[in-house]
Amino acid sequence: MRVQIKEWLEEHREEAVSFLQKLVQEGSVQGNEEGVQRLVRDRLTDINLEVDFWIPDDDAFLNHPYFCATRKDFSKSPNVVGKWTGTGGGKSLVLNGHVDVVPSGDPNQWDHDPFSGQVQDGKMYGRGVTDMKGGNVSLLLALQCLKDMGVSLKGDVLFHSVIEEESGGAGTLAAILRGYTADAALIPEPTNMKIFPAQQGSRWFRITVPGRSAHGGTRYEGVSSIEKSMLIIQQIQQLEKVRNARVKSPLYEKTPIPLPINIGSINGGSWPSSVPDVVTIEGRVGVGPDETLEAVTEEFEQALHDIDDEWLNIHPVKIEWFGAQWLPGSIDVEHELMGILQSRFKEVVGREPEIEASPWGTDGGLLTQVGNTPSIVIGPGVTSVAHYPNEYIELDKIFEAAELFTLVIYDWCGAES
Amino acid sequence: MRVQIKEWLEEHREEAVSFLQKLVQEGSVQGNEEGVQRLVRDRLTDINLEVDFWIPDDDAFLNHPYFCATRKDFSKSPNVVGKWTGTGGGKSLVLNGHVDVVPSGDPNQWDHDPFSGQVQDGKMYGRGVTDMKGGNVSLLLALQCLKDMGVSLKGDVLFHSVIEEESGGAGTLAAILRGYTADAALIPEPTNMKIFPAQQGSRWFRITVPGRSAHGGTRYEGVSSIEKSMLIIQQIQQLEKVRNARVKSPLYEKTPIPLPINIGSINGGSWPSSVPDVVTIEGRVGVGPDETLEAVTEEFEQALHDIDDEWLNIHPVKIEWFGAQWLPGSIDVEHELMGILQSRFKEVVGREPEIEASPWGTDGGLLTQVGNTPSIVIGPGVTSVAHYPNEYIELDKIFEAAELFTLVIYDWCGAES
Repeated sequence: MRVQIKEWLEEHREEAVSFLQKLVQEGSVQGNEEGVQRLVRDRLTDINLEVDFWIPDDDAFLNHPYFCATRKDFSKSPNVVGKWTGTGGGKSLVLNGHVDVVPSGDPNQWDHDPFSGQVQDGKMYGRGVTDMKGGNVSLLLALQCLKDMGVSLKGDVLFHSVIEEESGGAGTLAAILRGYTADAALIPEPTNMKIFPAQQGSRWFRITVPGRSAHGGTRYEGVSSIEKSMLIIQQIQQLEKVRNARVKSPLYEKTPIPLPINIGSINGGSWPSSVPDVVTIEGRVGVGPDETLEAVTEEFEQALHDIDDEWLNIHPVKIEWFGAQWLPGSIDVEHELMGILQSRFKEVVGREPEIEASPWGTDGGLLTQVGNTPSIVIGPGVTSVAHYPNEYIELDKIFEAAELFTLVIYDWCGAES
Repeated sequence: MRVQIKEWLEEHREEAVSFLQKLVQEGSVQGNEEGVQRLVRDRLTDINLEVDFWIPDDDAFLNHPYFCATRKDFSKSPNVVGKWTGTGGGKSLVLNGHVDVVPSGDPNQWDHDPFSGQVQDGKMYGRGVTDMKGGNVSLLLALQCLKDMGVSLKGDVLFHSVIEEESGGAGTLAAILRGYTADAALIPEPTNMKIFPAQQGSRWFRITVPGRSAHGGTRYEGVSSIEKSMLIIQQIQQLEKVRNARVKSPLYEKTPIPLPINIGSINGGSWPSSVPDVVTIEGRVGVGPDETLEAVTEEFEQALHDIDDEWLNIHPVKIEWFGAQWLPGSIDVEHELMGILQSRFKEVVGREPEIEASPWGTDGGLLTQVGNTPSIVIGPGVTSVAHYPNEYIELDKIFEAAELFTLVIYDWCGAES
């Protein structure tokens, strides 16, 4: 069977690269996902899946406790699901890939137009090519290959082509609430083909630290919000130590800080010679695969309230949880899908897979916690170039992943002989 | 003589209040000083002083090492000097007042139009009324009073009506370089009638702290410029302690931090989930009356270079000295003018004067260090409302100061009997 798959992939290589290029050229940043979703819809239709193409807008979705987005209007941002209905008796599988991409940033930092999909030396360059359109193409190739080989799967396969992963996961939430869940899920986010049975969640915080203004020459008459911010930062550093000391999972053995709290920005004060009366600190707190957002939120807020400072006791900091959030996700490392994946990985790649926990959130969190669909993240993209200028993917890896996914779907869903 | 002066001031009170109101109404923020300077020029002409009204634009001025301004074009910003040439044999005196005012800021924070000069309950309100047009009017009243009383002074009096005090002192520098220096100077900046024989100078710094970006979820792959900034801030706090431990002058006895280093702003990082790769810290370092800008600059830079940190050793911070600077100024507390001032103060105000060092810079620094004209700062304005909304001055204080200045000029310059 592997020989047959490899031949099929070789025959469809050129066409797949051209399709990936078209996906990149759509430049599907937030609010501009319609073009790329039409391409995906047509592709799913071509390979004979039942296609659902819809605008997420119902109340159950918009008012869900885990709805997290910077907008409520998705009229230009359809979701797509392709369903392969099995013959029955097999286990079902979600294949989840997002089509939204982060902005390309300063075009001068790119060697090529970020939305050209230029190919050079076996790599395709472009925003979103590694995160995660390359992985999506691997999945589509796997489905098309199985169809072309005439395989009849027993279990259902649901291909999620979702929006909003980069901004809080509303696309996957909408798919889950529309009933597109399964016994397990595969998500080909860029992992360099590492297997991530656990995914770190995260949440963004904004802390507003008060002070009292005064002339810099008599600064003792004021209270510096920058000095008070240092107490906050020290407490956050301490909290990070305490939280990480509790992490025992072998998945984090090689990770210097399993659950980082990143202080991403600090801004305050307006004049060199005035005492700054307010500072804003923004950051991201990592949420362990076995934690809830709620518990981490409470621990974080408690730590800041525990600071014993004369000024802050009377003028407490304000804590806001804003912007994006990602639920943590996980699957039992002994789960059957993990076994299939590892075994087929050895066969296809020729070595033992690396198994770790992801340092960032994926839609696997929502699938696990809201959709009751335990998820594994593994994909052909290059982790280190996601969100960066000159994002690229090695084309060979896309076909390696496609081969792996073909075999894993076949094993997991089962096939009529 | 005091009775005569008091009567004269009483007769001219209404007219002086009206003149001050006009000065305020000119709204002489940077670049808009021409109107107010025309009013001053006309007043000086009326009281028979020799008037010099000029645009500072010569090379010696623009290229002077202590030229410090945000502009080089003063074509709408004339300087004015009025000269009363003495009969000879007396000591000369500079009377220095700036006409530029800081911006009024948010007008909603004012109870009155900031440029109306509204009078209510014995106070005049408006931007610049306390800092320092009220003090300037006191000086003009003193000169006019002496003229009207027919006094023939022996020493010369030079009345400086200067621009740019709020932005680095270019107006006073121009007056000094044009030769308008004297044996001593009086500057009626708002001191609540305290006597400041020493004035703190200051300089603004900008520190750029480098880091290395990374995803927040793998923050250990980056270097946080916010964490490195904390080392910088701690070192600055330590330097402030060391510097202040050296201050022994009794003028600073009541001051909690004689020479503050104010950290005025901090800005860095752009995304909650990214490691911040650059932070900018701006602030103001106080320069003691007996220090030079150059020595303080060197000590500050050395302190930052002394930080022993693996990252900063290879990627040193950038230090810039930008924006405004004020030279420190001082006069010997045993100087003859100090004696005259204290003695006349007791007579006019009826109590011992408070003698301190100013926590901020004035044009007295340039007069002392560049013009070789030791300076005393004392004025009728309210220190705490300078630069703030609802800036005001108590009108009575203007006339009290005018009486004091009349007697001090008379004593210092000497008069033909």
